[in-house]
Amino acid sequence: MSSTLPGAVSSVDSIRLALRSWPEVDDYLNDCKGIILPIGSTEQHGPTGAIGTDALTAEAVALEVGQRTGVLVTPTQAFGMAEHHLGFSGTMSLQPATLLSVLHDLILSLARHGFERVFVINGHGGNIATAKAAFTQAYSSAASRGLAAAPKLRCKLANWFMAGPVFREARDLYGDQEGQHATPSEIALTLHVEPSLISKQRPLDPPAPAGPIHGPEDFRRRHPDGRMGSDPYLAQPQHGASLLDTAAAALSEDLANFLSAS
Amino acid sequence: MSSTLPGAVSSVDSIRLALRSWPEVDDYLNDCKGIILPIGSTEQHGPTGAIGTDALTAEAVALEVGQRTGVLVTPTQAFGMAEHHLGFSGTMSLQPATLLSVLHDLILSLARHGFERVFVINGHGGNIATAKAAFTQAYSSAASRGLAAAPKLRCKLANWFMAGPVFREARDLYGDQEGQHATPSEIALTLHVEPSLISKQRPLDPPAPAGPIHGPEDFRRRHPDGRMGSDPYLAQPQHGASLLDTAAAALSEDLANFLSAS
Amino acid sequence: MSSTLPGAVSSVDSIRLALRSWPEVDDYLNDCKGIILPIGSTEQHGPTGAIGTDALTAEAVALEVGQRTGVLVTPTQAFGMAEHHLGFSGTMSLQPATLLSVLHDLILSLARHGFERVFVINGHGGNIATAKAAFTQAYSSAASRGLAAAPKLRCKLANWFMAGPVFREARDLYGDQEGQHATPSEIALTLHVEPSLISKQRPLDPPAPAGPIHGPEDFRRRHPDGRMGSDPYLAQPQHGASLLDTAAAALSEDLANFLSAS
Amino acid sequence: MSSTLPGAVSSVDSIRLALRSWPEVDDYLNDCKGIILPIGSTEQHGPTGAIGTDALTAEAVALEVGQRTGVLVTPTQAFGMAEHHLGFSGTMSLQPATLLSVLHDLILSLARHGFERVFVINGHGGNIATAKAAFTQAYSSAASRGLAAAPKLRCKLANWFMAGPVFREARDLYGDQEGQHATPSEIALTLHVEPSLISKQRPLDPPAPAGPIHGPEDFRRRHPDGRMGSDPYLAQPQHGASLLDTAAAALSEDLANFLSAS
Amino acid sequence: MSSTLPGAVSSVDSIRLALRSWPEVDDYLNDCKGIILPIGSTEQHGPTGAIGTDALTAEAVALEVGQRTGVLVTPTQAFGMAEHHLGFSGTMSLQPATLLSVLHDLILSLARHGFERVFVINGHGGNIATAKAAFTQAYSSAASRGLAAAPKLRCKLANWFMAGPVFREARDLYGDQEGQHATPSEIALTLHVEPSLISKQRPLDPPAPAGPIHGPEDFRRRHPDGRMGSDPYLAQPQHGASLLDTAAAALSEDLANFLSAS
Amino acid sequence: MSSTLPGAVSSVDSIRLALRSWPEVDDYLNDCKGIILPIGSTEQHGPTGAIGTDALTAEAVALEVGQRTGVLVTPTQAFGMAEHHLGFSGTMSLQPATLLSVLHDLILSLARHGFERVFVINGHGGNIATAKAAFTQAYSSAASRGLAAAPKLRCKLANWFMAGPVFREARDLYGDQEGQHATPSEIALTLHVEPSLISKQRPLDPPAPAGPIHGPEDFRRRHPDGRMGSDPYLAQPQHGASLLDTAAAALSEDLANFLSAS
Repeated sequence: MSSTLPGAVSSVDSIRLALRSWPEVDDYLNDCKGIILPIGSTEQHGPTGAIGTDALTAEAVALEVGQRTGVLVTPTQAFGMAEHHLGFSGTMSLQPATLLSVLHDLILSLARHGFERVFVINGHGGNIATAKAAFTQAYSSAASRGLAAAPKLRCKLANWFMAGPVFREARDLYGDQEGQHATPSEIALTLHVEPSLISKQRPLDPPAPAGPIHGPEDFRRRHPDGRMGSDPYLAQPQHGASLLDTAAAALSEDLANFLSAS
Repeated sequence: MSSTLPGAVSSVDSIRLALRSWPEVDDYLNDCKGIILPIGSTEQHGPTGAIGTDALTAEAVALEVGQRTGVLVTPTQAFGMAEHHLGFSGTMSLQPATLLSVLHDLILSLARHGFERVFVINGHGGNIATAKAAFTQAYSSAASRGLAAAPKLRCKLANWFMAGPVFREARDLYGDQEGQHATPSEIALTLHVEPSLISKQRPLDPPAPAGPIHGPEDFRRRHPDGRMGSDPYLAQPQHGASLLDTAAAALSEDLANFLSAS
Repeated sequence: MSSTLPGAVSSVDSIRLALRSWPEVDDYLNDCKGIILPIGSTEQHGPTGAIGTDALTAEAVALEVGQRTGVLVTPTQAFGMAEHHLGFSGTMSLQPATLLSVLHDLILSLARHGFERVFVINGHGGNIATAKAAFTQAYSSAASRGLAAAPKLRCKLANWFMAGPVFREARDLYGDQEGQHATPSEIALTLHVEPSLISKQRPLDPPAPAGPIHGPEDFRRRHPDGRMGSDPYLAQPQHGASLLDTAAAALSEDLANFLSAS
Repeated sequence: MSSTLPGAVSSVDSIRLALRSWPEVDDYLNDCKGIILPIGSTEQHGPTGAIGTDALTAEAVALEVGQRTGVLVTPTQAFGMAEHHLGFSGTMSLQPATLLSVLHDLILSLARHGFERVFVINGHGGNIATAKAAFTQAYSSAASRGLAAAPKLRCKLANWFMAGPVFREARDLYGDQEGQHATPSEIALTLHVEPSLISKQRPLDPPAPAGPIHGPEDFRRRHPDGRMGSDPYLAQPQHGASLLDTAAAALSEDLANFLSAS
Repeated sequence: MSSTLPGAVSSVDSIRLALRSWPEVDDYLNDCKGIILPIGSTEQHGPTGAIGTDALTAEAVALEVGQRTGVLVTPTQAFGMAEHHLGFSGTMSLQPATLLSVLHDLILSLARHGFERVFVINGHGGNIATAKAAFTQAYSSAASRGLAAAPKLRCKLANWFMAGPVFREARDLYGDQEGQHATPSEIALTLHVEPSLISKQRPLDPPAPAGPIHGPEDFRRRHPDGRMGSDPYLAQPQHGASLLDTAAAALSEDLANFLSAS
Repeated sequence: MSSTLPGAVSSVDSIRLALRSWPEVDDYLNDCKGIILPIGSTEQHGPTGAIGTDALTAEAVALEVGQRTGVLVTPTQAFGMAEHHLGFSGTMSLQPATLLSVLHDLILSLARHGFERVFVINGHGGNIATAKAAFTQAYSSAASRGLAAAPKLRCKLANWFMAGPVFREARDLYGDQEGQHATPSEIALTLHVEPSLISKQRPLDPPAPAGPIHGPEDFRRRHPDGRMGSDPYLAQPQHGASLLDTAAAALSEDLANFLSAS
């Protein structure tokens, strides 16, 4: 069964699963089998960026998409796979096998209730591989356990920062200085949603160039301040507001297609 | 080495790890080796309670304790072990083995950076057993991996709702109608921090009595609306404000003792 | 379905699962769906206490409860979670994840045969967290595998040393010198069931005080001879006989309630 | 370093690790780095055999070998890998992956204390494969964790019922009616150590022939009463006494060679 | 330390690790720290394609790259993550967690010997996510175990079918009929290396269009004959020869860059 | 249901699963429920033997058995459990728990398609224990998942080098110099199937004697050049041809019995 979008809501509170009761979720499932699951990471984002950047941005985009579409948004899984950033203080990482189990268990929980389409809004590139592996494991377990929703269960990974319009807007704003980690686009989004971060902004030396990602020691050797080719000082809060709007528009469309697809 | 508390801060933002940069965490570690890790759960809380109750309350208490003591607060692990609530829509549960791995990995990440005292503020009874098992596994791994912080690593589980003063205040307010799940005290705290929830409050039929907790089918059979002996309609936002104050005071003292203990 | 107790038996042999044949177990299941599973630990118990204390005591109590109630007693799982005692020679510990799997597998085996109530008599505090986590995992697996007994499966952890009457008797006998590890009450019970241990008793220096339990190095540093605030020299075999009687009476009542509960 | 046998002891109590204190184990390690670990199984043994046969026999042989050699004997791991017997009531089985973890953890615990030679006396054919896999995993972990004993750590599996002299004596006593499961030789040993079992003996119909072992349903279909080609009615307690003596002699010699081997 | 390529060899036998002896590998490591590890999959490839396509092609490309560069090629891991193809007979799949462990263990084995650069030539899109997760887990374990090669260990995933020149050549040859599974380009390569497959080629009905990949039931429903938008009848052996040459040229260059990168 | 052999085929290609399409496998399953799965190892084989010996030989035997019987042969799992050989360069080992999962997943895949008899032709002694453990785990999972083939699923391990006629022929050819690792018989088989290996043959010093196998350091200390009592210089290609014939004849008969057994 495919679902249509419930439709925009006026208050973000009404689409936060955390603020719903179980009978309200039962009612919701009568109309829509889709749900949004935001996942981020808690890891270094350069000398001035917030450690929570990837979770803050995923959550902000997810809530905005939820508000525009009426699709429920679960709490954010704030910790992701950030092993390569463990050389910098404050990074908190789940090993790939752990994150795989986390996403597996969460998807299975949702499938048990009858959710058939899980739209995972992700804020961290390091989660992509493991999330995809987790989807496959979840499909297998749902079938093994004989869940009624198993044949219809589908998960989709939506990396907000890789959406076409977001990517283009970031390139227009920052050109090559967008870089690949601690990018001005993600930093801008955090400045918009957490204004206390603005005071942290300051000019920085040129960054180390982006390069391949291996273990934490290698990462820190290549990228001594944690940045990969980016100049986060270019970020401004109003950029963040615009990027959030762009991301939410693009992902809302993706979500609509995901829910309506046969 | 034992640590003393950094001291109260005026803004909650300054103790949120999510809003710190990695050099700021390095600086922090020069003065204090302690950190607060809030864990909750995403599970049914009766016909009127918010599914996010346990994460909302753990996070609120953790941030208040952080603000009063100056100790950093990590993002909240919003999903916990809630297998027995899976019979109710919206519950999202990690299996015990998964939660064990999550806490293990997070503690190991912190220990790698030199944190020696991890104060886990917990909002959900179902997490207690697994969290304690995870602490042991973390001590073993830290030693196996030869981490410098291994011999000094200590974790402590602080269940805010079981703190003596909180327990007494809840009994004073609600007597026997406090119950054991979807309790008016935790609901009151959510009404205080998420006022949109107030509109959900309504009188309810007498609850099923509290009883032992086994599998999800058994739980739902015993407790058809999800409550265990509680009357959450008694909850009022101002109770929540007071309970938050009481919990924060009690746990701040516990934290001070934990950090200063040899 | 709830069960009543089969009733006291004259010989302990008749309730030892190890001495039954499979057709006898089939017959038993026609009348009673309950079974007792003793778990202990193999770990240091101070300079004079037996390394097998926790398994010896759990087994002794379990057999006595079995004899008084007629409920079958499985062999004892002699190894438990004792990671924090690994700093002392002779300690043999299962990691939490391993013990979780052990109890999970044993409970699933029993549920497959139609046992619905598993009463775990435990002799070691360090097993409590993991055992509770294992119960939850077992309920989930029983349901996933579609076992007929799954909806009725219930496990209960009975820590003999924490039973109210036992606790009070130990306090009456030893006061503050009961302590928390290598306690005179558990040592007394071992002197009663293994008289060769009596010769090991000797006066000891005052013990290190009880304190929090972290990793093995920290434990040994805090408790150089393995005791936590206890004076096991106070233990006498006749105390052990009395404590065994008290524990068996208390747990037999708990078991009766557990089996008859709906 | 190779070890010589400590030498025969007059009382079995003195070689039971369960009855030793940790300082006594420290002393023991000054002279001998070897230890005996008995493992059994809790599984059906035909219509008249005891479910605990494999643990009872492994323990009896281990204690006898310990008494003759002075080598310490740990408590018995009473539960083994008995998945194929799960079609018969009372069987309690650990999955292969679980038993692998159990033996791994126990061996690592011993290696940590400085034990270098672990002699595993086994009473159940179904444990053999998993035990060998566990030894390999233990060697790897001991090296990964950098244990001092790692380079010298050796484990040896001693299946008492497969020792040459035992095998020959069983054939002499029972010929083809020894069979392969619920054999008269193992039953005889249980009649010797647990005389209450003698009353269970009765003539039985001819058994199903021994055959390959697959899953539990297949096993029960092939062997409807649980026996594989055996006539346990031939067993007599005095046979058990003799077989125990034969097994203990053979394994004591194996153990001496194992400890003295460079 | 970076390595340069050993240089082309005349016989493929000389770069097959399977045909080397251990002293030859020791010699090799004096000059080059790089190695090629081919991974494939064993899964349906439409009504006419070979089930071994992904392993056959990965191995062919790997051996050709090895011959051109002189870099050693390990045996092929012929089984990969193909859960979504399990609805078609003959598919043999490793679960994501299993494949993760396989690659982890193989990389750790290589790192132990001093290999620092592992170039994984992959023939199956479904392996990508899990392989990347495995690399991260391998970096972490190498560091945890204190391997000398740990700080320098790097793995790179080279999907031959996604290399730019291969992609362009396939589009030139087949246009939109390349599709996404059972593509004519991969089939052509198998016709080249296994001529017996040519007889299987026959015209097919238009394929189901490519679409998202979820569980096996969903996959078969969407793609009833296993193809995703492809017309493998267009494949010809001489195409395969050319594509192999193109792939080997592109990946040899990638490998040279990988080995020489600092 | 038991199966009869499909019968000899003229071309090896026709029994390689890798070269079949899924509809061909469907057809095959109408007639035969049996399949051959070759597993080897990638590990040192003395100073002159090929690292791939165990996979090369298992594959050669499997294909010959397949050709003679018409039973399908899957691709070879080239990596096995070789932890004890990790002290020699080029060895690539799966940990026991990993190999257990690999074989489990592959057998489950086959059972899902309706294969009921999996004949595992093995070239490496180190795989035996883990393979047997994996079979048991597979039977349990097949039943837990409710696969239709579960009650009939049977796996059999066929170690070609331990088949009676092979063993006798090797002893006739090489006497005591057959040894236990890097044996002339297995080397001869590789010389037959990979003639480039002949040039590696050279006289060697007397080998270290065979002995027990423990960890990798211990193995290398006991067996400095990797051999265990063997003189591989005695191997000749024509021996290999004969041994292959002998092995194939013996295993073809075993396979026929395995398939026809009720």
